[in-house]
Amino acid sequence: MINVESIVERIREIISDENTKQLKELLDGFHAADLADIFAELNPPERLSCFNLIDEEKASDLLEYLPAQLQVELLGVIDEELASKLIAQMPHDEVADVLGDMEEDESESYLDKLPHKFSSEVRELMTYNEESAGGIMNPVVLTVNAESDVRDVLDTIRIKAEKDSLDLYYVYVVDKQNHLLGVASLRKLLTSPIRCKITELMTRDIVKLHVDDRQDYIADEFMKYQFNALPVVDFYNRLKGIVTWDDVQDIVEEETTEEIYTSSGIATELVEDEDDILSGNILHAVKARTPWLFITLIGEFLAVNVANHFNRTLEILPIIAIFMPLLAGLGGNIGTQSITLMVRGLSTGQVTLKSAFHHILRESAIGLLIGLFFGLLVTLVTWGWQHHIGLGIIVGLSMTINMTCATLIGTLTPFILKKMKVDPAIASGPVIATTIDVVGLFIYFSFATAYLMHIK
Amino acid sequence: MINVESIVERIREIISDENTKQLKELLDGFHAADLADIFAELNPPERLSCFNLIDEEKASDLLEYLPAQLQVELLGVIDEELASKLIAQMPHDEVADVLGDMEEDESESYLDKLPHKFSSEVRELMTYNEESAGGIMNPVVLTVNAESDVRDVLDTIRIKAEKDSLDLYYVYVVDKQNHLLGVASLRKLLTSPIRCKITELMTRDIVKLHVDDRQDYIADEFMKYQFNALPVVDFYNRLKGIVTWDDVQDIVEEETTEEIYTSSGIATELVEDEDDILSGNILHAVKARTPWLFITLIGEFLAVNVANHFNRTLEILPIIAIFMPLLAGLGGNIGTQSITLMVRGLSTGQVTLKSAFHHILRESAIGLLIGLFFGLLVTLVTWGWQHHIGLGIIVGLSMTINMTCATLIGTLTPFILKKMKVDPAIASGPVIATTIDVVGLFIYFSFATAYLMHIK
Repeated sequence: MINVESIVERIREIISDENTKQLKELLDGFHAADLADIFAELNPPERLSCFNLIDEEKASDLLEYLPAQLQVELLGVIDEELASKLIAQMPHDEVADVLGDMEEDESESYLDKLPHKFSSEVRELMTYNEESAGGIMNPVVLTVNAESDVRDVLDTIRIKAEKDSLDLYYVYVVDKQNHLLGVASLRKLLTSPIRCKITELMTRDIVKLHVDDRQDYIADEFMKYQFNALPVVDFYNRLKGIVTWDDVQDIVEEETTEEIYTSSGIATELVEDEDDILSGNILHAVKARTPWLFITLIGEFLAVNVANHFNRTLEILPIIAIFMPLLAGLGGNIGTQSITLMVRGLSTGQVTLKSAFHHILRESAIGLLIGLFFGLLVTLVTWGWQHHIGLGIIVGLSMTINMTCATLIGTLTPFILKKMKVDPAIASGPVIATTIDVVGLFIYFSFATAYLMHIK
Repeated sequence: MINVESIVERIREIISDENTKQLKELLDGFHAADLADIFAELNPPERLSCFNLIDEEKASDLLEYLPAQLQVELLGVIDEELASKLIAQMPHDEVADVLGDMEEDESESYLDKLPHKFSSEVRELMTYNEESAGGIMNPVVLTVNAESDVRDVLDTIRIKAEKDSLDLYYVYVVDKQNHLLGVASLRKLLTSPIRCKITELMTRDIVKLHVDDRQDYIADEFMKYQFNALPVVDFYNRLKGIVTWDDVQDIVEEETTEEIYTSSGIATELVEDEDDILSGNILHAVKARTPWLFITLIGEFLAVNVANHFNRTLEILPIIAIFMPLLAGLGGNIGTQSITLMVRGLSTGQVTLKSAFHHILRESAIGLLIGLFFGLLVTLVTWGWQHHIGLGIIVGLSMTINMTCATLIGTLTPFILKKMKVDPAIASGPVIATTIDVVGLFIYFSFATAYLMHIK
């Protein structure tokens, strides 16, 4: 891996020396993906100076590796003709994404400059939902007709693959109306006799996507079948494009981020652009983060109410109040562990509804074991510290029961949500933590009250 | 997507009817990946009956899609000769994984039955760390020597790709000692003149992995360069194998699980087999989950100590105790949101150390905004409920400051850990929650005490 920081420093030195030739030599030595990392650390004027020194082919590769925001920035400041040329060299789906991030009049001016076929294909892509197969796919696919033999197909590849920037994993066999009939891998093609009909070696049981398929479904299909590319068809089985592995990589990262955000009560569906939560409009971030905090507020007022219900106990033995954070903290922690295990397991498929009972039993046993250990420890520490064995037993016993209940609630809830067809990720956050607080305090104060009545 | 549940039901019906022919027909209709999903839901005797009906080629594909545990189970119960045959048809890296999961004498008996070259390659794979490039790679690579022209290479593919189960994305050019000289894509090969020397069209700037590279590094390299396969070389630049996209898919899932586990205080490095945390030995799960709970315990005792420090205040105004869960709950929640955003951002690269200051300011502003809103709300509710405006102001003001501090601590800590080269994921869990508890209680009780002194 390259050391981006020291390279950026070196570039700044060369720029201040105004040694253009040396800068060009340095930049030429890097892979486009490395350049993308370097460019992300430069400031806009530096980026422009460097970009202008890179030759066209590499510049187009570099653009593909850059995040959307920098793509738009660079295309906006470089020579307009060069920008159009670079765009024409990028894959259609990338172009649709870049132009979709621009103001409409700006993207229109680029579309007008592109070759007609290219621009109309990009326009079609831009009509699909960004998170559907139609919005993700590349419409340039290598297709051959059903009458071809292996030699014809190889000739087609020689001509088409050279001209278009298409992804070459499979050859798709279509009829005259572009209906998808079959698929053949390059490997199969290269190991078959030259006169063999393509229809004889193609697979007819095709795993395919529909233009309206959502991105989480697409990611699941790729994970399951482990193909490098899947064809995308419309309602009439006409081939519209392909989705490839590198598209799915981005989806998986996005879906994971969503899973992680959801589990700490950040609602991604409330904001139009997910990136707004991390950067961008501050009010959008507030909007995404407030709802679950609000639910926590209501839940915690319930906990406050439980505590208030025992205010006589608190007045008689105010010392019991100081142990509340201990119980809530550990209950919340072990409960969160159980939720995390179940939610992640359900998401990867390692845990299923069928195995729910097994996991509930197992987690409860773990909660009881850990709870007994911590309960004993807390009893001893409290007894030693406050010289009050009754208090020690109340706190310790509550700890054991609270930790066991917390694992039970944490394990049970994701399954209930899953059964109700609600995303179990939302369980891991606020609701459960609050429930555990309410239950934990109730157990604790009940013991304390019972103890006070007993010693009276 | 197929409906696994109803298919499993159908299979059970047919098995109880003992209609072998119908069962075979049904099974033949599914893709191996679908069969893997179906097999996971069957019980062992059903699995065996079904497996014996599938023809050899599909059975070998199916084995590849099955989780390790079921692979070992099936290979253990089917005819030994068939098992050896199936193993010989699987890619070397898969075989090494399966045999690595078996008892040694069992795996040795399989290795003895395999062709010598195959078994020695698998033995070599089994010597590498399972989480290194050497343990992940497939040693069967399509190599050609530097003197070849395009026609030679295509001929080599025709012979080798048919015989071996190799992944065909790139052709690797090596010298006589197997040193890696260059790489050419199939696409480049198919679009170049037939008499062109391979050395003229290959790339010499090769992105490659070393056998000892760790899996998180490998995943990063794939994410960055978006290649379908990367070559793996040893210390002397000798080509040892390739790592492909489908290997990386498993790594990414594993790494994400680790990130998620770590963030709720489940220490994956304490147990040999990560799966033990979710299923398997219950004591391993306890071992993985206890350390961070223990640290929480110590932290929460600090919080208890803070509260105890104010025991005079608690005795005079015991009602303030009941609002402790409210403050701790909301502080913990909003703090966790900030940590989650930063840790995930650092992991995907959307947040960098360079942008730390920006994010700290931004998050604090968000914390203050949300804190002001919730503080006002809590003041009004408490005032209305307890008819005590002083109490309302104490609770509300503490809420605002606590929520602001919580976002600040939650944002700052991941950056500090990152700077100290510690995995920031460990911040999101227990330590921060506890810190926020301690700080929050201190703020709250200080206000309450100041209030009491003021009205005295």
